[in-house]
Amino acid sequence: MSQQKRILVGQSGGPTCAINASLAGVIAGAGEKNVRPVGMRFGIQGFLDGRTVDLAEAVPNEDALRLLRDTPASWLGSCRFKLPDPEADPEFFARALERVEAAGVSAVLYIGGNDSMDTIAKLARYGAREGSDVRFVGVPKTIDNDLVQIDHTPGYGSAARLVATAVSEVARDADVYDLKSVTFVEIMGRDAGWLAGSACLAHPDLVLLPEVPIEADALIARIEALLAEKNTVVVATSEGVRTPDGRLVAEGTVAPGTGTDEFGHLAQLSGASRYLAALVKARLGCKTRAVELSTLQRCGSHCASKTDLDEAFELGRMGVREALEGATGIMCSLERTQDDPYAVRYRTVDVSEVANQVKPVPSAWIAPDGMGVTAEFERYVRPLVGPAEPIALDGGLPRQMTPLA
Amino acid sequence: MSQQKRILVGQSGGPTCAINASLAGVIAGAGEKNVRPVGMRFGIQGFLDGRTVDLAEAVPNEDALRLLRDTPASWLGSCRFKLPDPEADPEFFARALERVEAAGVSAVLYIGGNDSMDTIAKLARYGAREGSDVRFVGVPKTIDNDLVQIDHTPGYGSAARLVATAVSEVARDADVYDLKSVTFVEIMGRDAGWLAGSACLAHPDLVLLPEVPIEADALIARIEALLAEKNTVVVATSEGVRTPDGRLVAEGTVAPGTGTDEFGHLAQLSGASRYLAALVKARLGCKTRAVELSTLQRCGSHCASKTDLDEAFELGRMGVREALEGATGIMCSLERTQDDPYAVRYRTVDVSEVANQVKPVPSAWIAPDGMGVTAEFERYVRPLVGPAEPIALDGGLPRQMTPLA
Repeated sequence: MSQQKRILVGQSGGPTCAINASLAGVIAGAGEKNVRPVGMRFGIQGFLDGRTVDLAEAVPNEDALRLLRDTPASWLGSCRFKLPDPEADPEFFARALERVEAAGVSAVLYIGGNDSMDTIAKLARYGAREGSDVRFVGVPKTIDNDLVQIDHTPGYGSAARLVATAVSEVARDADVYDLKSVTFVEIMGRDAGWLAGSACLAHPDLVLLPEVPIEADALIARIEALLAEKNTVVVATSEGVRTPDGRLVAEGTVAPGTGTDEFGHLAQLSGASRYLAALVKARLGCKTRAVELSTLQRCGSHCASKTDLDEAFELGRMGVREALEGATGIMCSLERTQDDPYAVRYRTVDVSEVANQVKPVPSAWIAPDGMGVTAEFERYVRPLVGPAEPIALDGGLPRQMTPLA
Repeated sequence: MSQQKRILVGQSGGPTCAINASLAGVIAGAGEKNVRPVGMRFGIQGFLDGRTVDLAEAVPNEDALRLLRDTPASWLGSCRFKLPDPEADPEFFARALERVEAAGVSAVLYIGGNDSMDTIAKLARYGAREGSDVRFVGVPKTIDNDLVQIDHTPGYGSAARLVATAVSEVARDADVYDLKSVTFVEIMGRDAGWLAGSACLAHPDLVLLPEVPIEADALIARIEALLAEKNTVVVATSEGVRTPDGRLVAEGTVAPGTGTDEFGHLAQLSGASRYLAALVKARLGCKTRAVELSTLQRCGSHCASKTDLDEAFELGRMGVREALEGATGIMCSLERTQDDPYAVRYRTVDVSEVANQVKPVPSAWIAPDGMGVTAEFERYVRPLVGPAEPIALDGGLPRQMTPLA
């Protein structure tokens, strides 16, 4: 066994429903290539503290691999750790590379979002400079879907499935009484509206995105017009919606056209939906409600998209193949070749072009009044949310992989 | 068709995942008995305003019946309307009975919780006194599971399935970083801990119920001891948890042992979980998080329990049969005959014994320290949450019955 090649894999950043599917793909890919997968506990930070796990032992068979695929959050543990610049702190990288080489691995795969791709870009740059043979490959994930150089990120489709499903169900719940009401459903995504926009599949009345500042008077007028036609108004609201002066509504900013005194107490409230619900109640006097979908958006594996998990798995598997074939400083990526029937092509991109970039929802996909998304957005997101992943149950509840000790 | 018998059915109180399954059962039962089902729009209140819908037309076939069964919230609409006492306001009842008899119906079925059973009890009492032939039958539903004279209420099993699933997923999400953290997951049920208790299936560290007052120092000590052993503590928290002086924690009560000045700002926060998260953060200094499962608990049909929907359907169907056989002033009920394999017997109970009673979680099912539930509770709730209802999908998302105009 001492001759068997080894690869190192880690998970980083916020957890998703699909990040373990990519890990399962890495483990499966390693098995196919007869290399031994070693996991970083708690990302690069845990690895630098000497914490690893032998994944061939910890995930010994197909059943375990399947359970891992369908288990939410980062099974290996995660970290939020921004590496210094190799040029500014070469000693850090010398130690890191020494650790990697001491672990006897020929490749490092890192599953994560923006910061994780930055980690891979820096390690690859330093490794190349030092003439190291170790390959560095990024495997993308983020529910925010804000990475560039990829059609969409693993984790997004499952989160979008939960969001669209929940919005459609909350809309039914909101509509049972014979009275006027406005319900704000708050959706994750502080800087980009991809996840809030996915609510379009449930056809809410309005969709508010971080990309377009909210003008309170215009919003109130629009809601008032809707209430003239129907009882129940549902607004899908990004947690990152902003006022025209650029501040987060969630910070309790007093909306233009309302008195600071009158709404001074709103500054105490957290959350965009709570703020907007209080604002509409004060201005229009109707019943309002704020529903935060909260953490379940990123960990609701019971509602996962099979397309999402399949792609996440394949990107992990591909990462092993690419690394063993000698690629480094790359991210495994997806290019959509057609919408209907949906098809993607797997390809690699330069990870340094991904790191530290953010992809907002394009203006052309946002409704002219800034309070909705277009049919193009719907066409984009629809194939990503389905079909449902057939989750194995135990006593009626989803089975999950046993946590690592 | 003018000779065909008619029955009237309404939905009342808070919506659930299962209330439309009972309505579907009523419609199916009416079909079997060749009587025409007529629906009240927005409960008894809408009916008294003359708002009805012909359900044989609106739900014309098996496909529609199936969609209705799996659609969350009250398809007919609901109301919250407490009837006066027949003795105090006989005129109201004279008008109501006149309306019912004018509609040409031989029976009224009302699907709801405590207040709805009170409605049926009062109508039946008045009808009997006046010698009316109209039968009045209650069909139970409430996610709170706090009705007496029934093993458990339709709606509870599906809500419990969502709660236990979500708690197990949020627990994974909470455990990804290598640091100490305490997560409070807030669960519906202001007066009874049945739904919070169902989280036991996900094995959280603590379960806090409205039935047992929280002593802040004891809670903090318990959490501190847990944190000494593990990184991640998960507390399933009823929205209705109370302090020893009987006030709701959610009201921002300052917990004993903490200074009013220090926590004065907490009074601004809404929600038990937010309050407790702030309290633990202030006292123990670790990372804390509050996750509210919110409305999704009662409308998350994508996560419904088949056992729950089957029973809800059968209780509706049974209601038609009982009414046509002449029963009145009854509620259709469930008696558990065994836990494993799970089995129930359908029976009727006197609705006046159900109305205005509340069933708390029995003390014997609560852990001695008041911060958990026993194996008996787990044995009770386990069969109610599964298996999963096989929801029909359309484009990856649950199909739903078209709303009534």
